[in-house]
Amino acid sequence: MRILILGADGYLGWPTCLYFSQRGHEVIGVDSYFRRKATAELDCESLFPSPDLIQRAKVWEELTNKKINVHIGDITDYEFLISIFKEFNPDAVIHYAEQPSAPYSMINRDRAAFTLQNNLIGTLNTIYAVKETNPDCHIIKLGTMGEYGTPNIDIEEGWLEIEHNGRKDKFLFPRQAGSLYHTTKVQDTDMLWFYIRTWGIRATDLMQGPVYGLSTDETDLDERLRPFFNYDEIFGTVLNRFITQAVAGYPLSIYGNGNQTRGFLNLKDTMQCVYLSAMQPSEKGQLRIFNQLTEPFSVRQLADKVKMAGDKLGYNVVVEHIENPRVEQEDHYYNVKYTGLKQLGLQPNYLTDNVLENFFAVVDKYKDRINKDAFFKGIKWK
Amino acid sequence: MRILILGADGYLGWPTCLYFSQRGHEVIGVDSYFRRKATAELDCESLFPSPDLIQRAKVWEELTNKKINVHIGDITDYEFLISIFKEFNPDAVIHYAEQPSAPYSMINRDRAAFTLQNNLIGTLNTIYAVKETNPDCHIIKLGTMGEYGTPNIDIEEGWLEIEHNGRKDKFLFPRQAGSLYHTTKVQDTDMLWFYIRTWGIRATDLMQGPVYGLSTDETDLDERLRPFFNYDEIFGTVLNRFITQAVAGYPLSIYGNGNQTRGFLNLKDTMQCVYLSAMQPSEKGQLRIFNQLTEPFSVRQLADKVKMAGDKLGYNVVVEHIENPRVEQEDHYYNVKYTGLKQLGLQPNYLTDNVLENFFAVVDKYKDRINKDAFFKGIKWK
Repeated sequence: MRILILGADGYLGWPTCLYFSQRGHEVIGVDSYFRRKATAELDCESLFPSPDLIQRAKVWEELTNKKINVHIGDITDYEFLISIFKEFNPDAVIHYAEQPSAPYSMINRDRAAFTLQNNLIGTLNTIYAVKETNPDCHIIKLGTMGEYGTPNIDIEEGWLEIEHNGRKDKFLFPRQAGSLYHTTKVQDTDMLWFYIRTWGIRATDLMQGPVYGLSTDETDLDERLRPFFNYDEIFGTVLNRFITQAVAGYPLSIYGNGNQTRGFLNLKDTMQCVYLSAMQPSEKGQLRIFNQLTEPFSVRQLADKVKMAGDKLGYNVVVEHIENPRVEQEDHYYNVKYTGLKQLGLQPNYLTDNVLENFFAVVDKYKDRINKDAFFKGIKWK
Repeated sequence: MRILILGADGYLGWPTCLYFSQRGHEVIGVDSYFRRKATAELDCESLFPSPDLIQRAKVWEELTNKKINVHIGDITDYEFLISIFKEFNPDAVIHYAEQPSAPYSMINRDRAAFTLQNNLIGTLNTIYAVKETNPDCHIIKLGTMGEYGTPNIDIEEGWLEIEHNGRKDKFLFPRQAGSLYHTTKVQDTDMLWFYIRTWGIRATDLMQGPVYGLSTDETDLDERLRPFFNYDEIFGTVLNRFITQAVAGYPLSIYGNGNQTRGFLNLKDTMQCVYLSAMQPSEKGQLRIFNQLTEPFSVRQLADKVKMAGDKLGYNVVVEHIENPRVEQEDHYYNVKYTGLKQLGLQPNYLTDNVLENFFAVVDKYKDRINKDAFFKGIKWK
């Protein structure tokens, strides 16, 4: 298959390029280097030095003799994006090219406006490019479990049949997100669903939970192939931050009481989920939605796991509760359905002691590069 | 009260300026002249010549000795918008400044992107300006009944309590709109609700049906005070288009079978609804939603009414069904609740024979200015 990956330089985008390339698919990767620029600007760069996308593609080619076609540019520029579609005519487009940080979107008006415009215009352009070049092309879009928020009812996979006053209809599951970033993903879903039912195009929307981990079988081939690994308040997902804090001898910072529960998954499982979705596309006119997670944990449970594993390895991990900078429910109901991807063939990599130990080992190798200032930036929701 | 009106030059914005000014409130009107530019560009200008906003404010001052403070600028420019908030410190902001046409948003990618960016950045900026200058300021935002689409269940006023697997929660009523424009309004609602529950600001979101009519008590004082009156395929709401088609001896163009049902209201009632909302603001942290309509009609019922009234006046009205350019359900369930605004004090002006006859009389005065090319532009959803 011909696979176009938008946001190919990112934490998920880059290992996805390798995953498809390794399996014999023709990959084109597009990125605007937003993450590189933003992390430099905000002093919260990746733990590992990362050669740029063109360099990394060269390393991959040297090692495997497989070519990843790379284009640097911004998908909010429609002329740029459509030229890629015309040249490459992909069978599927995997859309990771969004500003992905909740705290970033809450810094101020300018960052909020950037998030809104980057995420929505990027998604609009992707939809239009598919319609104008090949309406059969399968759009695989990364949503987020954060779109649902923490409702007091069971979270279904994307859709809900509602009975009201004796009549029934089926709707997108109610969405009520916890940051402007997450809200742009809700808005994306609204827009994608509008164009799917109007134009009969096809898409899979993956409601992904927070991802952890720093390696896949492909990135393990060479250090230079590692994805970005952010451990800071802005771009670092919670488990990645906790492990790095533990290694740095910095207290694990739990926001509030830590009962906030979310569904997590290993970076390796993101690869599987996206790949399985691409190999078994949705029907024309269908918005297929999967909840992409393998295990729910509370933030406190995660901290406990990191402390247990870290202490065993001699790190003497301290856990701290800090005032919650976010506006969110700390104690809430959380019961999520996530069977769809398993039905497609997902074999979960759970968060075992072994996984945690390996995680510690890799982060420890880069211990001297940890920038402790990045752990706390003081971004508040209010 | 100090009332800031965004989109003050528009079909609804201008008569709203007069309505508040007439009742002794201090009014500041802001507009970017989008409608003037777009209608000139697309050859579908208002039936009446309209002096620009500054001129119209002068006419109003000459007639009534009441001053409307006018600023021309674009609210997607945050520096411009916040300077207005700082100077004026409004008690309420009425936000009409959106690209309001469904067909316009479906012309092509560029118009879709403009709609998305204009509507969402404009709303974001309004929310931020309120938060940064005076979080007590009441945001009155025009939504649209089109956000709900045509669900197979009763449409409640904005919210729905959902019971699922024995548990309950209350959510925004499911929204599933029929155009990209309407989808941006869904996205607006998502965003507004996010910031309200995060920051505790206050807003009223008015889910308005299609408006008809061309005069209010204030605009009737002088011809130069008339609001824009669009009767074309792009900016003309359906009844305004039908009346003008009847006067021009052009067949009334029903899209498809005409069973599409919507909730309509007279321009005079929009004035009342917005005014009543401003005088009785929502609580802090509350997103108060009203369904703003007075009577549901099917498109065919409207055409029949126009034909009956027109024939009686000697116009010999022809009704035609054309292939539906939109993707929409023609036969559907439609049962809307709309009691909230009546409880605030709305006294509806229904679509009586008398209202229709007066409507014909005014449009007939400008018969020679009707541009028949504007009735059909051939914009298709697919």
